[in-house]
Amino acid sequence: MPDQLRALDVPVFERLTIIGLGLIGSSIARAARRANAAKIIVAADISPDVCARVRELGLADEVSDDLAAAVSHSDCVILCVPVGACGAVAAAMAPGLKPGAIVSDVGSVKGAVVAAVQPHLPAGVHFIPAHPIAGTEHSGPDAGFATLFKNRWLILTPVENGDSAATEKLAAFWKAFGSNVEVMDAAHHDLVLAVTSHLPHLIAYNIVGTAADLEEVTQSEVIKFSASGFRDFTRIAASDPTMWRDVFLNNRDAVLEMLGRFNEDLSALQRAIRWGDGDALFNLFSRTRAIRRSIIEQGQDTAAPDFGRHAADEKK
Amino acid sequence: MPDQLRALDVPVFERLTIIGLGLIGSSIARAARRANAAKIIVAADISPDVCARVRELGLADEVSDDLAAAVSHSDCVILCVPVGACGAVAAAMAPGLKPGAIVSDVGSVKGAVVAAVQPHLPAGVHFIPAHPIAGTEHSGPDAGFATLFKNRWLILTPVENGDSAATEKLAAFWKAFGSNVEVMDAAHHDLVLAVTSHLPHLIAYNIVGTAADLEEVTQSEVIKFSASGFRDFTRIAASDPTMWRDVFLNNRDAVLEMLGRFNEDLSALQRAIRWGDGDALFNLFSRTRAIRRSIIEQGQDTAAPDFGRHAADEKK
Repeated sequence: MPDQLRALDVPVFERLTIIGLGLIGSSIARAARRANAAKIIVAADISPDVCARVRELGLADEVSDDLAAAVSHSDCVILCVPVGACGAVAAAMAPGLKPGAIVSDVGSVKGAVVAAVQPHLPAGVHFIPAHPIAGTEHSGPDAGFATLFKNRWLILTPVENGDSAATEKLAAFWKAFGSNVEVMDAAHHDLVLAVTSHLPHLIAYNIVGTAADLEEVTQSEVIKFSASGFRDFTRIAASDPTMWRDVFLNNRDAVLEMLGRFNEDLSALQRAIRWGDGDALFNLFSRTRAIRRSIIEQGQDTAAPDFGRHAADEKK
Repeated sequence: MPDQLRALDVPVFERLTIIGLGLIGSSIARAARRANAAKIIVAADISPDVCARVRELGLADEVSDDLAAAVSHSDCVILCVPVGACGAVAAAMAPGLKPGAIVSDVGSVKGAVVAAVQPHLPAGVHFIPAHPIAGTEHSGPDAGFATLFKNRWLILTPVENGDSAATEKLAAFWKAFGSNVEVMDAAHHDLVLAVTSHLPHLIAYNIVGTAADLEEVTQSEVIKFSASGFRDFTRIAASDPTMWRDVFLNNRDAVLEMLGRFNEDLSALQRAIRWGDGDALFNLFSRTRAIRRSIIEQGQDTAAPDFGRHAADEKK
C-alpha cells in the first residue's frame, strides 16, 4: 500500500499539540511530520528533560512545558500520557482549549479515560478517544519512529451523538500514517483489549516474576536457557511499568473477568497434567495451533520461525 | 565465531543413525552433513510418508523404516521422537545396536527419558541424554535447517560413572554445529526447563485456549487485534501438540511445582488489581524489565523492538 505513506498535499490539522513525548507521542510527531498531517506540531511535556530532548531531536516546531499554553490555537490535541494521568492533564490544559478543537488520546483503556477526561473539557470541544494497537517494549522520546503505526490498527471510540465530521478528520489523520481505522464503543474496546493485550501482559509479567524468585534454579540459568520459551515473555514484560500499572488499575473489571476465565482453564489443564490426561492436553494444543494459522493468514504476523531467532535469520 | 561452522576434517562418527526426521531430526541430518560430523547418515522413521519425503529431500545416505536394521553398525544413534515414544523406539531398535555405540536423544525432558530408554539398552552401549535448546513452532522434515543449533545451548545429562570419552565425543559432534555444550544432571535439567520452557508453553497454550472460548469477543476480533500482546503467545502455542503433550505428562512433578508458584504469584497480582494496589503492580513491572535487560546483555535475544514487527523492520 505505497500511497498510504505518501505525504498529504493538504495537512489534516493546522496546529497539532501532542502532550507527552514518550514512545507513542514522539512517534506521532515523527509520523505527522513525514506524512504532512499537521502544519505546525507543538510538543508539550511536564518533564523539562523530555522537553530538552525533544528540542535536541527536532521533533516539533514548538516545545513547551506549559500545557494550557501549548494547546491554545490548536485544532487537535492528543494526550499521549499514561492512562492514570489523563484526568490531571485534561484539567491542566482545559483552560487553553480552543472552541471546536478535537481532543484525543492513545490510551490502552477507553472507558476510564472518558470518565477522567470528559468532565474537564469545555462545551464545543470534541473528545474522540483513540487507541493505536502499536508499540514496542521501549520508552521515551528516543524510542519512537515514524512507521510505528503503519499497517497497524487504530481504534476510535467516539461518544454517542458525537460530531461525525470530527471523527472523520481524526480517522484521516491516522490513515495518513498507514493505520487501519476501526470504530467501536469504549466498553467493547476495553473487553477486546483485556483479552488480546492486558491479560497477556499480566501473565507475562507474572511468569517473569515467578522465575525471578526461584531459589533452586538460579536466575542466571533462567537467563541462559531463556530461548526455550521464556524469552518471548520477557519482551512483553519489559513494557513501561507506569503505563501498565495504570492499565490494570483502570480496566479492572474486564481484566478480572478475563483472568477468572484464564484461571478456570488453567486449573483444568493442571488437573489434566496431574492425572495424566494426554487427550485433553493434545486437544487443546491442536486447537491453539489453528488460531496461530489464522493470525498469519490475516497478516498480523509472519510465519518466519522465531524461537531460534539468530539461527532462523541465517536460514537462507 | 566463524570456525564453529567450518566443516570438520575428520567426522566425529563413522555412521550416524537419526530416528525420527521431524524438525529436530532433519535439522541434525542437515547440520551433520554440512559440518562433516558423520561419514554416513542413516535416517529411520516408522512413517513411510516421512521416509519418502526424506528421500526426496536427499537428507540422508540411507533411509529405512526398520529401526533395528537402521541402527546396526552405527556408532551413534540419536532418538528425535516425542518423549513419550522414546521407550518403544528404544525397545524396537535395541536388538540392532552395536557394542560401544552411543545412544542419545533430543527430548525436552530427561529424567523420564532415562527411565524409559535405559532398561532396553544392552550392556556396553553408552546412553547420553541430550537436549538442544533450539526449535521453531514448525514441524516435519521440511521444517528443519542446518543452522538451527548455531549459538544455541545443548544440554547433556550423562549418567553418573558414565563413559567420559563417549560424552566428549557427543559434545564434539554438537559443537560442530555451533552449539554451546552444558552438562548437568537430569533432575536439575528438568527443573530448569520446567520454568524456562514448559511453564511458558503451558501458559501460552492456556491463554490462547481461553481467548478461543470467549463469546463476547469474537474470535475474529482476537485475531485482528492480536498484535497488542496476544500474538506473541500464539507463536509458542503453535508448537507440536504431540511433543508438548508428552513433555507435560513426563515432567509432571516439576511442571506442577512451577505452576503452583505461578498461581500463587498470579493470585497476589489479581488481589493487587482488585484492591487498586498500584505500588505492588509497579514494583513487579519494574523488576521484570531488569530481567529482560539481562537476557539481551547475555546475547540470548536482540533489543530490536518486536511488537510492531513490520513497522520496526522499516525503522531505518
